[in-house]
Amino acid sequence: MKSLVLEERLKLSLRDFPIEREEALGVRDVRIKLHTVGICGSDVHYYTHGGAGPFQVKAPMILGHEASGIVVETGAEVTSLKLGDRVCMEPGIPDPNSRATRMGLYNVDPAVRFWATPPIHGVLRPSVVHPENFTFKLPDNVSFAEAAMVEPLAVGVHAATKAQVKPGDIALVMGAGPIGLVTALSALAAGCARVFVSDVDDTKLELAAKLGAITPINVARQDLAREILAATDGWGVEIVFECSGSPRAAEGVFDPLCPAGRVVFVGVQMRGINYDVGKAMVREARVEHVFRYAHVFPRCVAMLSSGAIDVKPLITRTFDFEDSVRAFEIAASAPKGEVKMQIALPQ
Amino acid sequence: MKSLVLEERLKLSLRDFPIEREEALGVRDVRIKLHTVGICGSDVHYYTHGGAGPFQVKAPMILGHEASGIVVETGAEVTSLKLGDRVCMEPGIPDPNSRATRMGLYNVDPAVRFWATPPIHGVLRPSVVHPENFTFKLPDNVSFAEAAMVEPLAVGVHAATKAQVKPGDIALVMGAGPIGLVTALSALAAGCARVFVSDVDDTKLELAAKLGAITPINVARQDLAREILAATDGWGVEIVFECSGSPRAAEGVFDPLCPAGRVVFVGVQMRGINYDVGKAMVREARVEHVFRYAHVFPRCVAMLSSGAIDVKPLITRTFDFEDSVRAFEIAASAPKGEVKMQIALPQ
Amino acid sequence: MKSLVLEERLKLSLRDFPIEREEALGVRDVRIKLHTVGICGSDVHYYTHGGAGPFQVKAPMILGHEASGIVVETGAEVTSLKLGDRVCMEPGIPDPNSRATRMGLYNVDPAVRFWATPPIHGVLRPSVVHPENFTFKLPDNVSFAEAAMVEPLAVGVHAATKAQVKPGDIALVMGAGPIGLVTALSALAAGCARVFVSDVDDTKLELAAKLGAITPINVARQDLAREILAATDGWGVEIVFECSGSPRAAEGVFDPLCPAGRVVFVGVQMRGINYDVGKAMVREARVEHVFRYAHVFPRCVAMLSSGAIDVKPLITRTFDFEDSVRAFEIAASAPKGEVKMQIALPQ
Amino acid sequence: MKSLVLEERLKLSLRDFPIEREEALGVRDVRIKLHTVGICGSDVHYYTHGGAGPFQVKAPMILGHEASGIVVETGAEVTSLKLGDRVCMEPGIPDPNSRATRMGLYNVDPAVRFWATPPIHGVLRPSVVHPENFTFKLPDNVSFAEAAMVEPLAVGVHAATKAQVKPGDIALVMGAGPIGLVTALSALAAGCARVFVSDVDDTKLELAAKLGAITPINVARQDLAREILAATDGWGVEIVFECSGSPRAAEGVFDPLCPAGRVVFVGVQMRGINYDVGKAMVREARVEHVFRYAHVFPRCVAMLSSGAIDVKPLITRTFDFEDSVRAFEIAASAPKGEVKMQIALPQ
Repeated sequence: MKSLVLEERLKLSLRDFPIEREEALGVRDVRIKLHTVGICGSDVHYYTHGGAGPFQVKAPMILGHEASGIVVETGAEVTSLKLGDRVCMEPGIPDPNSRATRMGLYNVDPAVRFWATPPIHGVLRPSVVHPENFTFKLPDNVSFAEAAMVEPLAVGVHAATKAQVKPGDIALVMGAGPIGLVTALSALAAGCARVFVSDVDDTKLELAAKLGAITPINVARQDLAREILAATDGWGVEIVFECSGSPRAAEGVFDPLCPAGRVVFVGVQMRGINYDVGKAMVREARVEHVFRYAHVFPRCVAMLSSGAIDVKPLITRTFDFEDSVRAFEIAASAPKGEVKMQIALPQ
Repeated sequence: MKSLVLEERLKLSLRDFPIEREEALGVRDVRIKLHTVGICGSDVHYYTHGGAGPFQVKAPMILGHEASGIVVETGAEVTSLKLGDRVCMEPGIPDPNSRATRMGLYNVDPAVRFWATPPIHGVLRPSVVHPENFTFKLPDNVSFAEAAMVEPLAVGVHAATKAQVKPGDIALVMGAGPIGLVTALSALAAGCARVFVSDVDDTKLELAAKLGAITPINVARQDLAREILAATDGWGVEIVFECSGSPRAAEGVFDPLCPAGRVVFVGVQMRGINYDVGKAMVREARVEHVFRYAHVFPRCVAMLSSGAIDVKPLITRTFDFEDSVRAFEIAASAPKGEVKMQIALPQ
Repeated sequence: MKSLVLEERLKLSLRDFPIEREEALGVRDVRIKLHTVGICGSDVHYYTHGGAGPFQVKAPMILGHEASGIVVETGAEVTSLKLGDRVCMEPGIPDPNSRATRMGLYNVDPAVRFWATPPIHGVLRPSVVHPENFTFKLPDNVSFAEAAMVEPLAVGVHAATKAQVKPGDIALVMGAGPIGLVTALSALAAGCARVFVSDVDDTKLELAAKLGAITPINVARQDLAREILAATDGWGVEIVFECSGSPRAAEGVFDPLCPAGRVVFVGVQMRGINYDVGKAMVREARVEHVFRYAHVFPRCVAMLSSGAIDVKPLITRTFDFEDSVRAFEIAASAPKGEVKMQIALPQ
Repeated sequence: MKSLVLEERLKLSLRDFPIEREEALGVRDVRIKLHTVGICGSDVHYYTHGGAGPFQVKAPMILGHEASGIVVETGAEVTSLKLGDRVCMEPGIPDPNSRATRMGLYNVDPAVRFWATPPIHGVLRPSVVHPENFTFKLPDNVSFAEAAMVEPLAVGVHAATKAQVKPGDIALVMGAGPIGLVTALSALAAGCARVFVSDVDDTKLELAAKLGAITPINVARQDLAREILAATDGWGVEIVFECSGSPRAAEGVFDPLCPAGRVVFVGVQMRGINYDVGKAMVREARVEHVFRYAHVFPRCVAMLSSGAIDVKPLITRTFDFEDSVRAFEIAASAPKGEVKMQIALPQ
């Protein structure tokens, strides 16, 4: 069986790719046959740009890090998983001895090894060896496709956790891309009575409006702060999640925010933003910043299983593994109406 | 029009009852024509016992404190409400100058005046004068009946807020009475993936199981801690809400609790409980205690309006005002299958 | 007796100044004879610039808001104060009915009336009427001079409170002006094991180094982040307090910060700063912003009385009231070695 | 060289004692020559009772877990320590793969192995092998004697951390034994303006009163709640630390507590206490429970080094190692005026 290999910028191959280190199954590791892998914006960015910041693709690298699969081998000391278990996997493995990891903050451990981040290979391939601790069993009512959504969902759930949502809060999510939408779903699940979602793309906003108690605002036509202040008796929203990555959006996070409100920066900003300390001060705003997620995968699985969150409407297209290269070409074209595209591996 | 007056223990009258102090409408007050009033366990307790702890009924007192109505008069400086507004009301009014109130903790102000708590009259009567700040406008899609549920719901939402629910937490609610059920709904709305509800009454548990991702446990037949540990891979639940008021339940709050879990005491205990400090220590449990609620009425209204919480299944029976006395007689008989009984006043 | 009046930009008079509204002593007010008033940077700014942002001096205004005095008259319902009590006063009075005030967040109430902020007069004058709730009795061992330091100290204590200092944290305070120094003292009192203070002025840094477990860093000569990382085994500080108001300092807040560290913006920034979201993300930094203070005056008084904080070394010069104009001229010259200058009113 | 061995209840020997498992130095371990070891109440309890709860001494066991020493050998991957480093050691080693440990809660990991808790040997012996991660280098100005106080101090600092002390809080510490005193010191260092310490022993209270802004209350003669309410204008203390282990004290924790106050149970209770839920409710008290400590050893070392906490007055007597048996006999006699007794090993 083959792997999807990014040979270099703009050049993908579906080909055999031996990965020796996998042969060693540690006593606390499992080997997982991959089933479904989602295409993330970062995968596409590596494909189109050949790198991102300090992470440059210098040698052929397998893509993909949003994944589900089946346990096919277990290490000698594995206790929580067994052959045949359906699972999803957390793609970043920290150094267990780092100071941050020991404090429970493993996502900010600088030594973390993350799938499909050079030089670490991703998982659009037959199988992978992974630590038991970062592999999570799926209940019967969570599909492989949903399970491959846990990785992006985890970003939203982690952001909602950091926001310390109180029941009945009202939130604004800036940006209606995949991360904006999972954040909106997470904010609602975390207790928000209502969520505003802002974007410039009506297609995305229409989809957002169908996901729950969500009010779309098209900032190409509407004044965001004015709309929100009008809808909240002049008080503003308790939480703003910046998920667009747009510097202009980021500069406006305090305008619709209520006194003692919280801002969570989720979207990556390519450079420094213009930040208005004065506006933050008069509100005594609290600003949080998230980096991936920590300790939330089992929570996401539980919420998918219980129905607290439904990600199925976000999965808009599924490709066979043999069409992987075409899938990335389509993904790179920023197709209208697509939210999450996934690849199903041969079983 | 008449009022429902508790003349003395076990003696209710529907009769004219002049309440002079209401004639004075302060500049920041509104006068509200009552529409729907729920029957609370404390109303029934005053009826059957003539008092509760330090609060003894020494003179005829109007009952009722879970209420909705219509604004019929506004004080000169009222800005947020106008004639005809449909509203619900927070029944406790604190001293605005007390130290606790100024810190935002008005519910623990010892000087709070609370409806239907001797010697303060309740609102099973034609109209009431109330401060604008404790009167909340209803959206069109929240009915008077739902609005009269905001008061008990506020207890659950306040408890869930104190618990600092994180998305994906699993909780146990001890007790499937009205407060247990609003707490379970609040815990789910606040982010719990799943909630266990325990009781000894199968009828109540069956109703609970229909309200969402709720797993009933009948503690007359099942070992509570064993069931929960088995269902959580031996970890336990992140939160235990004690809503039963049973000393035996209260003594067991730590057994099903996970490390660093939280316990919230919601149900009133008539006397001291046996508390196992050692079990709390080995888990480093955090224990919170709630007293009514603060700042949550508008949040409850927003969640009813958005669909985040649905209290309609809890309203099991509605009486005409002229049948109020009979309604209390029925309520006092602990009728099987009833959760919340309400009284609709003549309009 | 006279008042110190800012007639217009750069023109101060010591003259009679009738303030009619003071004649009305409310039932919960006290009248206070002023004793000591500190000179704040904002007072000096009004003197030298005639205004600050939206607050322009359009009519003669009395300066001064850091004050202590003696109660000389009490309203009918005052219970906590009596004639002759030595007191200090919180200079901002919020609207008690605003939504923010009722939540306990009175400092961010937009309607707050603050001494010596146009058009509200300050207190470099014989007496002032003030609400009992914002007037705090002094223990015998707290002098009038120390009491007039409570106002700036409150900023530091509020900042340290927002930072949620844990015992043994290490902090960096950027800026060794009066606010930087009270923040450093507050951070130590709040549990920091050690505080770095950075500035470009060796005189200020030398004074800082004498105040406790404080390590000065002169950023004109030293690389701030490198020094701090070297001193903390590469981990960084748990908290950065930005008290300099310098945009360049503000841009560097994340460089010396540890994973999950907190930043508190205390110093006013005249315009937007360049903010590096990426650096904040990889640390999952929490950023707080303070606006004056709330609920901390009695805490400051208690800490001065117990010795937890000693502000006496910060009071570097005291003027007689008749020398007030000269005091402001000196203050406006940015005198080397002065931290806090105070004015003693005639008794 | 010899070890101090508890052969069985009431029988101690100073004798050779081979401990084979120490011969194996892991790659991330260090070998430490012991220098000073404090005598803890639990050591004495094992001596006098032969066990504690589930932990029974069934075979000869070396005592002692409050320890400092010198690094004499380092594993191949040790990076933070080198030969000759002066260190103190955290006596409990958790399973690094347990769920609690990975969340940063290693102290509540049930699999923790703790010195001098059967069947794990303590460190009143020549040397011990210990993980680098639980071994902390001492600054030059922290003595071996102070370093051997870090273990009990860590309990107090952990309790003060859990209490989330805000600067200017007022606290009550129940119990003036060693743990009560380190908790009082920690509470002051963590921001308390003032601490009340209650006990029945005037000797201990006199020592407590000399340690800082501490007010002693002898509960044999004084009504605790009345004294505290009188001293706080009827408000109460923000925090109660129960360090006495007395059930009677534990039952009274809510009486002197202010609205929204916090209680921290530090002292071990041998059986269930009588807990007044109602008193906790009307205050909306938060109750925390601590189990040893986590992540605080380096914080304690930093605070000893900076002078934020001074434990030297608590070290009231030091014995030579050859007098160890006598030291335990004296300790078991509950000697008046002793707080912490230590044993200095031969160097």
